[in-house]
Amino acid sequence: MEFLARIDVNLPPDMDPGAAEELRTRERERGKELWGAGVIQRIWRIPGKRAVLGLYRAESATSLQEVFESFPMYPYLDITVYPLADHALEQEPRH
Amino acid sequence: MEFLARIDVNLPPDMDPGAAEELRTRERERGKELWGAGVIQRIWRIPGKRAVLGLYRAESATSLQEVFESFPMYPYLDITVYPLADHALEQEPRH
Amino acid sequence: MEFLARIDVNLPPDMDPGAAEELRTRERERGKELWGAGVIQRIWRIPGKRAVLGLYRAESATSLQEVFESFPMYPYLDITVYPLADHALEQEPRH
Amino acid sequence: MEFLARIDVNLPPDMDPGAAEELRTRERERGKELWGAGVIQRIWRIPGKRAVLGLYRAESATSLQEVFESFPMYPYLDITVYPLADHALEQEPRH
Amino acid sequence: MEFLARIDVNLPPDMDPGAAEELRTRERERGKELWGAGVIQRIWRIPGKRAVLGLYRAESATSLQEVFESFPMYPYLDITVYPLADHALEQEPRH
Amino acid sequence: MEFLARIDVNLPPDMDPGAAEELRTRERERGKELWGAGVIQRIWRIPGKRAVLGLYRAESATSLQEVFESFPMYPYLDITVYPLADHALEQEPRH
Amino acid sequence: MEFLARIDVNLPPDMDPGAAEELRTRERERGKELWGAGVIQRIWRIPGKRAVLGLYRAESATSLQEVFESFPMYPYLDITVYPLADHALEQEPRH
Amino acid sequence: MEFLARIDVNLPPDMDPGAAEELRTRERERGKELWGAGVIQRIWRIPGKRAVLGLYRAESATSLQEVFESFPMYPYLDITVYPLADHALEQEPRH
Amino acid sequence: MEFLARIDVNLPPDMDPGAAEELRTRERERGKELWGAGVIQRIWRIPGKRAVLGLYRAESATSLQEVFESFPMYPYLDITVYPLADHALEQEPRH
Amino acid sequence: MEFLARIDVNLPPDMDPGAAEELRTRERERGKELWGAGVIQRIWRIPGKRAVLGLYRAESATSLQEVFESFPMYPYLDITVYPLADHALEQEPRH
Repeated sequence: MEFLARIDVNLPPDMDPGAAEELRTRERERGKELWGAGVIQRIWRIPGKRAVLGLYRAESATSLQEVFESFPMYPYLDITVYPLADHALEQEPRH
Repeated sequence: MEFLARIDVNLPPDMDPGAAEELRTRERERGKELWGAGVIQRIWRIPGKRAVLGLYRAESATSLQEVFESFPMYPYLDITVYPLADHALEQEPRH
Repeated sequence: MEFLARIDVNLPPDMDPGAAEELRTRERERGKELWGAGVIQRIWRIPGKRAVLGLYRAESATSLQEVFESFPMYPYLDITVYPLADHALEQEPRH
Repeated sequence: MEFLARIDVNLPPDMDPGAAEELRTRERERGKELWGAGVIQRIWRIPGKRAVLGLYRAESATSLQEVFESFPMYPYLDITVYPLADHALEQEPRH
Repeated sequence: MEFLARIDVNLPPDMDPGAAEELRTRERERGKELWGAGVIQRIWRIPGKRAVLGLYRAESATSLQEVFESFPMYPYLDITVYPLADHALEQEPRH
Repeated sequence: MEFLARIDVNLPPDMDPGAAEELRTRERERGKELWGAGVIQRIWRIPGKRAVLGLYRAESATSLQEVFESFPMYPYLDITVYPLADHALEQEPRH
Repeated sequence: MEFLARIDVNLPPDMDPGAAEELRTRERERGKELWGAGVIQRIWRIPGKRAVLGLYRAESATSLQEVFESFPMYPYLDITVYPLADHALEQEPRH
Repeated sequence: MEFLARIDVNLPPDMDPGAAEELRTRERERGKELWGAGVIQRIWRIPGKRAVLGLYRAESATSLQEVFESFPMYPYLDITVYPLADHALEQEPRH
Repeated sequence: MEFLARIDVNLPPDMDPGAAEELRTRERERGKELWGAGVIQRIWRIPGKRAVLGLYRAESATSLQEVFESFPMYPYLDITVYPLADHALEQEPRH
Repeated sequence: MEFLARIDVNLPPDMDPGAAEELRTRERERGKELWGAGVIQRIWRIPGKRAVLGLYRAESATSLQEVFESFPMYPYLDITVYPLADHALEQEPRH
């Protein structure tokens, strides 16, 4: 099933810049893997916020939670999950 | 640009059933046109609510508003719009 | 997976009493079927409110929504869904 | 009676890792005791949050509070309690 | 155990005045019984609101709910319940 | 007149344990005085929170504020005050 | 003591215009009495709202509630009360 | 025109006591000047909060903001401003 | 001074269509006058809502309220007002 | 298109005063550039808050986000964005 998730990133302001940069690099790498695998279906930045909105595909909230815990930045994330139900309109053809 | 929109449907409970059904049919037809044209990129039902979540592509909030006003059900809709900014991860290849 | 759902019942105050009673009877019957089948795992009344809290088992938000739409009272319900992830403690033995 | 409780865990980000790990171990042990004794009837993780949802059985809010204070992590918990009333449907037979 | 309950009264504005008055009379009678029996421990009006705050003594949320349903005005009430735990200070002597 | 007050206690997590214990002792002593004098009419713990709910008798908000400022812990308290009006039911006899 | 009160006026939209006008006239008369007597110390309109903000002098919430119930429009008012404590600065001289 | 302003005071808990006391003294002095000049028309303490409610007279929000910035404590204040419109009742005579 | 105002339009759903259209025409005429006079400095539609956001110039909240009451639709409007203070950047030259 | 943005400034209270002043100077310079270029159409201070309200012109939320990230103070800003749709009244002539 699909889930929408708003992910707010709260890095401590006094984090060592090198450690922060390394964390961001590892986060980007993990993001690429999940994007490549189709777990992340879509992703946007929320303008003005240190936050992203992601559309995830996962079998259940339990496996979604495992995805979240695989993020290197997980200890610094506050995530709000919205479960989504399919809509019949998506069965219609595109022009 | 892309917009996320939550659309709550508030048909009056005492609406004539025939008129309500005709309105729903016309709404579905308009939905198919917008889906076919790619204006509606994705659409989901919000479980438990008389509401949908839609991902729209429109040049501006002004043209998005024109899309909303083209819905036959527009007088009965309460819509909340969230502007979205692109995320670099979407430039990455899928496996 | 499991979902917690708060279900608020908003019967119109001027509903015909006989129609309301018949609706309640049909709702109870549907409830018994879902309870018997284990779709409703647990159910409580929220004290002071015309509302119940239910623990549902469903494959996805899409099938949960189908369950909701099978309620005779569905047009009068406002439902808020909370997705739940498993907790390791439940693997432990009861005394 | 039964109570639903949302428990948010707010460990200080600069807590000594060894002390944090020892605290988690002791918390798990206490959790097993309460689970084994049936005080914790059900427990779930709230996806994306450092929080759990628990279904507790206790004689009163006073004894529930004693349970909470027996958690090694209690000084770091923010707990919201929802009292629950029984629902007649639970008297029905399972298939 | 003790519960605090805020009770908002929403009589329909177009209710027949005679029926409303009779309902208020019956509500007062039921209130006297519950007050006399010590189920209602304390009761206040919330200034400016069509609402009261009541301190109730009941064995559980289930029996509290039965008390609420015994109110003649119950169909018109919106009640919010707060469970209370005992405080050690109340064991101290009054001067 | 009577006031209901929710008092949240926010001791700094890094407070010296001895100083915290001494503060709690002094707070208890002041509590006993106010309880003994009938200024605190009733007091409960809010389950799961570092907070109490108190029923106070004071001539005005000004004298209630003086009571609050007499608490040794006052600098660490966040207090929300609800003014209460008398209810006629309390004139009725107890059985 | 002094209380600040926000008073929202919710006249039913389908009220008979003559009855509404008569009600407004009687409300103004009662307002003049309370103003003249110093019960209403100050009064303002909240711009854009069908609401006023009033500064009241009353011995207690109980007598304030009696003032509110003396308003002809009371059945149509939603009032929120804020208790106020004196501030030492008001003892200072004006230039 | 008149503005109502709620001013919450957030002095850092670890502020040097001497510096805090000196700041409070300077704040009181500035308060006396503004009170004397009639810029502060009325002022109250909000019971239980480290906050005051003030009634200000200023030509515009711009000049009100200049008043706020003249407070020695301004860096530690969180202020919420409510614009007020005159009410005709204040033209009436006091008895 | 300048005020930002969000204006929500709540025409009754069962209003006579001819009367509604006439009201809209008169509202547009009044809008043109206020726009022409510079009282309305800027105006936008809030996408998805039956609401506009307006930037008003008025001497005080009292005169702003008079502007609002001059709207033919005023009885159906819910308006929220935000007072604005000047910002020094606006003194800078445009390129 | 146009966007309204509320920008709250959260400089750490223990920031080095020289560094803070230099940051403010650079922020002002960037502000002048964006004002000069018409990206910032209007800007106000929110009275009582460490916050401004800005009216921005940008092609999309993506380019607006680039503007935000060009602010030297961006790491300390919390920004809330409101998309705006054009209103027909702005086509009318000024007197």
